[in-house]
Amino acid sequence: MRIARFSIDGNVGYGVVEGDASVEGGPVLDIIKGIPYGDFERSGTKVPLAKVRLLPPVLPSKIVAIGRNYAEHAAELGNEVPEVPVAFFKPSTSVVGSGDPVVYPSFSQELHHEAELAVVIGRMCREVPRERVKDVILGYTCANDVTARDVQQREKQWARAKGFDSACPLGPWIETELDPADVAVTCTVNGETRQSGRTSQMLRPVEDLIVHITEAMTLLPGDVVLTGTPAGVGPLNDGDEVAVTIEGIGTLTNKVIKRG
Amino acid sequence: MRIARFSIDGNVGYGVVEGDASVEGGPVLDIIKGIPYGDFERSGTKVPLAKVRLLPPVLPSKIVAIGRNYAEHAAELGNEVPEVPVAFFKPSTSVVGSGDPVVYPSFSQELHHEAELAVVIGRMCREVPRERVKDVILGYTCANDVTARDVQQREKQWARAKGFDSACPLGPWIETELDPADVAVTCTVNGETRQSGRTSQMLRPVEDLIVHITEAMTLLPGDVVLTGTPAGVGPLNDGDEVAVTIEGIGTLTNKVIKRG
Repeated sequence: MRIARFSIDGNVGYGVVEGDASVEGGPVLDIIKGIPYGDFERSGTKVPLAKVRLLPPVLPSKIVAIGRNYAEHAAELGNEVPEVPVAFFKPSTSVVGSGDPVVYPSFSQELHHEAELAVVIGRMCREVPRERVKDVILGYTCANDVTARDVQQREKQWARAKGFDSACPLGPWIETELDPADVAVTCTVNGETRQSGRTSQMLRPVEDLIVHITEAMTLLPGDVVLTGTPAGVGPLNDGDEVAVTIEGIGTLTNKVIKRG
Repeated sequence: MRIARFSIDGNVGYGVVEGDASVEGGPVLDIIKGIPYGDFERSGTKVPLAKVRLLPPVLPSKIVAIGRNYAEHAAELGNEVPEVPVAFFKPSTSVVGSGDPVVYPSFSQELHHEAELAVVIGRMCREVPRERVKDVILGYTCANDVTARDVQQREKQWARAKGFDSACPLGPWIETELDPADVAVTCTVNGETRQSGRTSQMLRPVEDLIVHITEAMTLLPGDVVLTGTPAGVGPLNDGDEVAVTIEGIGTLTNKVIKRG
């Protein structure tokens, strides 16, 4: 099931995506009563997907991201594979949705794309045993862990390099039935493939990451875990269209803009 | 003015602290109608401070903390004074109030106290010019940037070392009229002084930190900026009572516990 968050005529809601481009009229959203955490009902009221504005599919209280979780990506930046996962935060204020601009921050000259599988947490949890991880996950979406690479290299902790406004595109929707073990993760810039990996290349799979994070902290419904990026990261320039596609989920697209 | 957040008989609210221990019956809270961001009214309904449970005085969407902002503290851990401020996040789930326990995380054997002046943001802001910083600040409170020092040394980014549940005691209340330029910041453990510094020793004052952070990201009302810790950090053990006192604000007290 695909759950989108959207606005139409000033109203904001969640809906279940039905059908695809092959259906006459294209896919529609069956509007959900309430929120998609826990049991929910579909209203039966449907709107064409083409008529709504997609919003970020989650409103995370925090995003916990994992660095260097693909060996080839660690190597391409001259880093060793870490003995312990590298965990850092991106703030709620960095989230944008599919179709929203990524705004080049004034203090960077080198933005990079990082395509990642994002895990959306479905229930409040802490110290989750490995075998219970699937119970705390609502689903998966696409993420771009946009990084000011020059700032990351200058500043020892990454709050500004990876936490600036619009540094965390998420979307287009949450897929609740994905098996994340081995799906393709790709990133294109202006249609040209830059990153192409598979989640099976992760040094630590989703289960291990959730265990590692919740050993330390409580995750809340809607919190997001980013699982690292495959090799091929590279620069984003003013006007670029960057697209993250994950097999079985869909495509997250954002345009990069520089403010004058 | 001192603004506290509290619970009494299952109700949660904000109140203005009036009087002190020298007044007969002790200080009271004048309950606020609504929330203390923007204009607010006092209700005139007063409850003795001794009868309420103090809660964290803010519900931050994020906490942006600054490392190594006092030269002597940087030196005591063998670090150089950074050219650029070291900015990192602590999550909302790490916040506890005065009187709440700090729970030793299972993956650390070396918790440290770090007494800090905390800035409470009063209004949504971004790219704040230096001369407007005072306009976006609601007030100040005491913070303890509790750190799993062994984990911080092992893990390149500090999400777990400084972001575990209860790693961010804040309180006891927000002081709205403090001049933060030169006040004493002290930390005691079981009554013995461990840290004793003055905010005038900060390498970068509050104004510079807010400019630096908001160059990258939007701060929301209730967001908190931690301003670094003076020299004297050291271990916390099971059963210790740790107290952070800031001149002109008050004292934040927490007991350290290990779960069996």
